[in-house]
Amino acid sequence: MATIFSKIIAGQIPSYKVAENDKCYAFLDINPLTKGHTLVVPKIETDYLFDLDDDIYSELMLFSKKVATAIEKTVQCKRIAVVVLGLEVPHAHIHLIPMQKESDISFSNKRVELSKEEMTAIAQNIALLL
Amino acid sequence: MATIFSKIIAGQIPSYKVAENDKCYAFLDINPLTKGHTLVVPKIETDYLFDLDDDIYSELMLFSKKVATAIEKTVQCKRIAVVVLGLEVPHAHIHLIPMQKESDISFSNKRVELSKEEMTAIAQNIALLL
Repeated sequence: MATIFSKIIAGQIPSYKVAENDKCYAFLDINPLTKGHTLVVPKIETDYLFDLDDDIYSELMLFSKKVATAIEKTVQCKRIAVVVLGLEVPHAHIHLIPMQKESDISFSNKRVELSKEEMTAIAQNIALLL
Repeated sequence: MATIFSKIIAGQIPSYKVAENDKCYAFLDINPLTKGHTLVVPKIETDYLFDLDDDIYSELMLFSKKVATAIEKTVQCKRIAVVVLGLEVPHAHIHLIPMQKESDISFSNKRVELSKEEMTAIAQNIALLL
């Protein structure tokens, strides 16, 4: 069965898309820890990041670097944190999370509530830099 | 002034070294969140991960993948989490953290206390696979 991320990539589930190339896809996390929290995924459906072959893994990492640099120019933050946990969705995904302080990066934190209009604007502003 | 990580790389401060190549260095975190918690750093002293040039960044990421795979075979865990925060030490570093559950990966958690002998054995066992 396709993962939720494969359905997002295929457009079967809507997303606030930030960027895409032939191997990778980036979109806003629907329950953001901070404004601009983005997920980067490989298009190939692989559960565990370190099971990706070196070529796709490297491409995903370079794609994440570009996306992170664009996020950083779009939202107010000190830098972009990187987190890969991945026990919940069996499709490797990299969290890129704008942070002001280290305590922003705890998955037990309350999520930021943003309107559809705000989410759309954030995604568009990041996408414009990519 | 050299960062604490540059001093570790230079051998001026001791570390539980796990692996090294000409561009990267990996060693056990001295205050581990879980057994096997490892830091991977570029030898070049750059504060922010995404300021590394693409070549060194890619090499660091591939080196981290190899180290993560070795850690996973050495300590009991479901997989290796990846975290990059980096507001405390101005030298980019990737945390590779063995996890059983997502709540293992919170930097406000109590740290695991391990003896020098245990730390040495963990580092040696990981190094043997690299």
